[in-house]
Amino acid sequence: MNVSRAADIYREIQQTICQTLEEADGTGKFTKDAWEKEIGTGLTCVMQNGSIIEKAGVNFSHVHGDFNDKMANLLGENAQSFAATGISSIIHSGNPFVPTIHMNVRFFSLDNGSAWFGGGIDLTPSYINPEEAGWFHMIMKTICDKYDSSWYPEWKTQADDYFYLPHRKETRGIGGIFFDRIQASEGADFEKMLNLTSDLANAFPQIYSRLMKDNGHKSFTTAQKKWQKIRRGRYVEFNLIHDRGTKFGLESDGNIESIFVSLPSEVEWVYQYQPEPDSPEAKTQELLKKGIDWTK
Amino acid sequence: MNVSRAADIYREIQQTICQTLEEADGTGKFTKDAWEKEIGTGLTCVMQNGSIIEKAGVNFSHVHGDFNDKMANLLGENAQSFAATGISSIIHSGNPFVPTIHMNVRFFSLDNGSAWFGGGIDLTPSYINPEEAGWFHMIMKTICDKYDSSWYPEWKTQADDYFYLPHRKETRGIGGIFFDRIQASEGADFEKMLNLTSDLANAFPQIYSRLMKDNGHKSFTTAQKKWQKIRRGRYVEFNLIHDRGTKFGLESDGNIESIFVSLPSEVEWVYQYQPEPDSPEAKTQELLKKGIDWTK
Repeated sequence: MNVSRAADIYREIQQTICQTLEEADGTGKFTKDAWEKEIGTGLTCVMQNGSIIEKAGVNFSHVHGDFNDKMANLLGENAQSFAATGISSIIHSGNPFVPTIHMNVRFFSLDNGSAWFGGGIDLTPSYINPEEAGWFHMIMKTICDKYDSSWYPEWKTQADDYFYLPHRKETRGIGGIFFDRIQASEGADFEKMLNLTSDLANAFPQIYSRLMKDNGHKSFTTAQKKWQKIRRGRYVEFNLIHDRGTKFGLESDGNIESIFVSLPSEVEWVYQYQPEPDSPEAKTQELLKKGIDWTK
Repeated sequence: MNVSRAADIYREIQQTICQTLEEADGTGKFTKDAWEKEIGTGLTCVMQNGSIIEKAGVNFSHVHGDFNDKMANLLGENAQSFAATGISSIIHSGNPFVPTIHMNVRFFSLDNGSAWFGGGIDLTPSYINPEEAGWFHMIMKTICDKYDSSWYPEWKTQADDYFYLPHRKETRGIGGIFFDRIQASEGADFEKMLNLTSDLANAFPQIYSRLMKDNGHKSFTTAQKKWQKIRRGRYVEFNLIHDRGTKFGLESDGNIESIFVSLPSEVEWVYQYQPEPDSPEAKTQELLKKGIDWTK
């Protein structure tokens, strides 16, 4: 079974992610909660209150079940049953200069013969540093180009479109790559996508370790912390209103603590908050738009 | 036009609400932002950082427009155009012992002849005080009984069902009353519902003034404040995932700052938070369920 093979590989990578992040943080440790429900099994790894990482969730799951009407609507497929596996992770730092990061790789298989990979990595800084954004996007491009040079531009655009808050008319952050429904039920297609998603998942803790090393020591003011909390409000809005993964988790009666571990700790909503003109906050706000080529 | 008549009355009550709340708070003042969009007009009154009130939004709107497919799906009606008016208010206090309150009254009219009232008041304490809950529910019952003695039990149950977070398996707070689609296009039916919704909207600032007077002076610890922030997280989850008013506002391109003024200022999410057994927090958690008759 391909789902089991992907699950075995993802399960192992989850361990590597946690170990690398623990080493980079220095203080924080992951608690590991194995869960077992009718829908399947999973391992939720959570770090809270590390020295740089405020909250990190690294979820692995391997699930299966009956295909229901809600999934049919969401996926536009007809089937009797599904099986899926994936790693999903979000890391929030208490330091406003360390971006929030999100990574997800997943393989989804239906008993009608349809099977696909999805995933991506995207970055949400409270303060956008264009040089850092370029460095991050170059890593995404390099991983994609190894398999297909048409993918990075396509998936970069998809990230811009997906990580977008229409009600705010702004992107969630500087994007990254986002792909879904890459059909790969077996053979070379399957191996290629399993390798690509493994490359992404393995790069993820390396990227975050570098972001922590570069920014984790920077001091910040109360006003900068407040700005981070306001930006986190947008993150919560995205996750609760738009994110398909969250919706799917809620629809399929997933483990609620594992789903909501993605939410940042301290968040703030201020009525009609406007950053000072020409401030670093205002500059970040201006860059929260689609179509910026960060690699240039 | 009945919508204009209801709008005139609601607009006036909005002013009374703001005045009464300002007097009760003592320090905080409402800023008043009139807005005008293609969809209609409104007045968003917001108080931030009063002495007891941390954030209060009192929104009035009078809108109209083309009936679109999304509304058709949401309402199960077919029409060409709609008109609507209402007041919607949420008040958050910085003091964990002063509950969060929500009030909404609205009249919605379609050009197909269908028109209805909806609304209610519900209370969300961070610390449930059963005596206070009984007092609040008795006020709701008294207002309803003046018009129809079958309404309080029916609408109280609907509040339990509506203000419920299925993913947490808990109610948002101690409920109150919630009603919708009370058909009243004209005549005595219209007058009765206009009066009832006016009674509710007028009682609202009186109720909150009493809650502020009784609890606003109480001192609290950092741990109690943290508990309030965690409870507020549930409030945000409800508003962003379930609330129909928020959904309708987002679908119909409403004023985003007016819609999200309902969100509390400071919020916190903690992975797998569990209150201490037998603590006041645990007792509140136990009471977050449907079907409690608070008037007994």
